[in-house]
Amino acid sequence: MRCIRCRGPAVIEIRRHNSALCKDCFPHVFREQVRKAIRRYEMMTPQDRVLVAVSGGKDSLALWDVLLDLGYRAEGLYLGLGIGDYSDRSGSVAKAFADARGVSLITVDLRTEYGYDIPTAGRRGARSTCAVCGLSKRYVFNRVAVERGFDVVATGHNLDDEAATLLGNTLRWQTASIARQSPALPARDGMVKKVKPLHRLSELETAAYAFLRGIDYVVEECPLVAGNTQLRYKDAMNAIEAGSPGTKAEFFLGYLDRGMPLFRGEDAPALTRCERCGQATTGRFCAFCRARAQILGERLEITAPRTSAVGAPDPTDAELASELPDEVLPVELYGR
Amino acid sequence: MRCIRCRGPAVIEIRRHNSALCKDCFPHVFREQVRKAIRRYEMMTPQDRVLVAVSGGKDSLALWDVLLDLGYRAEGLYLGLGIGDYSDRSGSVAKAFADARGVSLITVDLRTEYGYDIPTAGRRGARSTCAVCGLSKRYVFNRVAVERGFDVVATGHNLDDEAATLLGNTLRWQTASIARQSPALPARDGMVKKVKPLHRLSELETAAYAFLRGIDYVVEECPLVAGNTQLRYKDAMNAIEAGSPGTKAEFFLGYLDRGMPLFRGEDAPALTRCERCGQATTGRFCAFCRARAQILGERLEITAPRTSAVGAPDPTDAELASELPDEVLPVELYGR
Repeated sequence: MRCIRCRGPAVIEIRRHNSALCKDCFPHVFREQVRKAIRRYEMMTPQDRVLVAVSGGKDSLALWDVLLDLGYRAEGLYLGLGIGDYSDRSGSVAKAFADARGVSLITVDLRTEYGYDIPTAGRRGARSTCAVCGLSKRYVFNRVAVERGFDVVATGHNLDDEAATLLGNTLRWQTASIARQSPALPARDGMVKKVKPLHRLSELETAAYAFLRGIDYVVEECPLVAGNTQLRYKDAMNAIEAGSPGTKAEFFLGYLDRGMPLFRGEDAPALTRCERCGQATTGRFCAFCRARAQILGERLEITAPRTSAVGAPDPTDAELASELPDEVLPVELYGR
Repeated sequence: MRCIRCRGPAVIEIRRHNSALCKDCFPHVFREQVRKAIRRYEMMTPQDRVLVAVSGGKDSLALWDVLLDLGYRAEGLYLGLGIGDYSDRSGSVAKAFADARGVSLITVDLRTEYGYDIPTAGRRGARSTCAVCGLSKRYVFNRVAVERGFDVVATGHNLDDEAATLLGNTLRWQTASIARQSPALPARDGMVKKVKPLHRLSELETAAYAFLRGIDYVVEECPLVAGNTQLRYKDAMNAIEAGSPGTKAEFFLGYLDRGMPLFRGEDAPALTRCERCGQATTGRFCAFCRARAQILGERLEITAPRTSAVGAPDPTDAELASELPDEVLPVELYGR
């Protein structure tokens, strides 16, 4: 197998493109795909302060690596989830990467700052562990970005993540969530801009990139993720992809071209400020503060009765997920 | 396990409804689901002449059985595909059902009437066997219905079929095909009304109904269907369903409620008459006549140059499938 660019020995075959690349050309092509995504969706400018959500896994470190190589002002944010050794290793790996590249890594510890960790939240809260973890990440990333004056938050979602999320949203016709699956969500009241520069690249490709670039990353999966619905969607997509290479890319990139325009107008909730923390929310208290209060056994202060709150049932995971206009971050972001 | 209606011994468990039913109550509930589908989509009236596309498989015979029990004027149409013993058995089973119920069965043989059979078409044509088979069925069903004055064509597509087709259409964002996946397509120039009264019932449920009603049907799969894409989509849906019972129903019925309205306007091709056979088409010659000419090695007469035809490449399966506003009939219709 020969590299289609230089005819050297290929190290990776990309079936959906019916092509193969060598160890030098592949990282180049990978970077070009990121550059293309950034340009097409006007994700960031060289002047922007970019906050990369770094988990210590292959995707987020590959993303940070590429953004630095492309000359962006990319700082990292690592959120300590308190998942035992797994989190400890993830934090060390993220720190080592930052030190080696001489760039800044902000670290926030969920227990220190907010009084709980993910294993506790999974046991005590009404949400699934993955739901509350995703919610916590979205909240902290946005809050840190807003408070520290970043222009954009970049996450390492790859094509497999996006296809699996889109499949899950489509199987339930969650039209508001589908509408929000753009690779670039503009800033709006209290919500910083969010971008996904790796959305055109598969999980295999980000792993190959990280490997070829010699990036040390945490390979193991989050130990709490077993049975996660997102993983089932990935399995289903992989089974279809095996029979029809290119389906994943056709599904997600086809959605961006032909599907997304039809869903415009499905995502326009009015945002207000959470009475507890001041962050953006569609309700009175944001989903994060409600979930946190439940985990910590606190009551959110009720200052006046509101029609929508009286006798209303506890929000479901779906409602909760919809409160911040971004989908739940897939598990990969924290170490897969 | 007890029947939720009469507390007798249950014979079937319906996980997505978290319920179980006995051998007498299940057929009743099954019929009620069909009645509900017919009412909601105004599929037919007791005065309508209904043509049931009968394959000899469980779905189409269950459908015919229910429609007769509900008092509809339902006649059968069996299309001989020429697939060896498999077609012979399918034809006999359909005939036996019609005789036992004392109802009329129209039989059309593809080779006698149109000069080819499906195995030949699969070998000689440019389309896949399943594509040309689906095209042939759609064409003949519509043509017979139009020529013999039927008001509506009813097909035995079940929930599994519809979910798999919708998955395939959605994975490729074929928005026109998605828009057409209504359980009832109204009549329009040259196209008779098409309905799918079993769309709320799973494959397992139609099999159970046929079994409990003592209907003799062809159980074996079409021998030409191995590797069919639709089957891969069914496998993927079944894998997801196993982890999250109800996903299939949520996907297809959720589409009808929340998805379909967004796709309105995506399906409005102008129809004209095929210069060869007079049936509805979006082009000069209909997809059926083009495929048939190719199979038989004939040339369709070119009487005058037309811009769209000059130098135009041969249509793809997708274009071909889009020429008659109905999706390709799933393989089950012919014996699964």
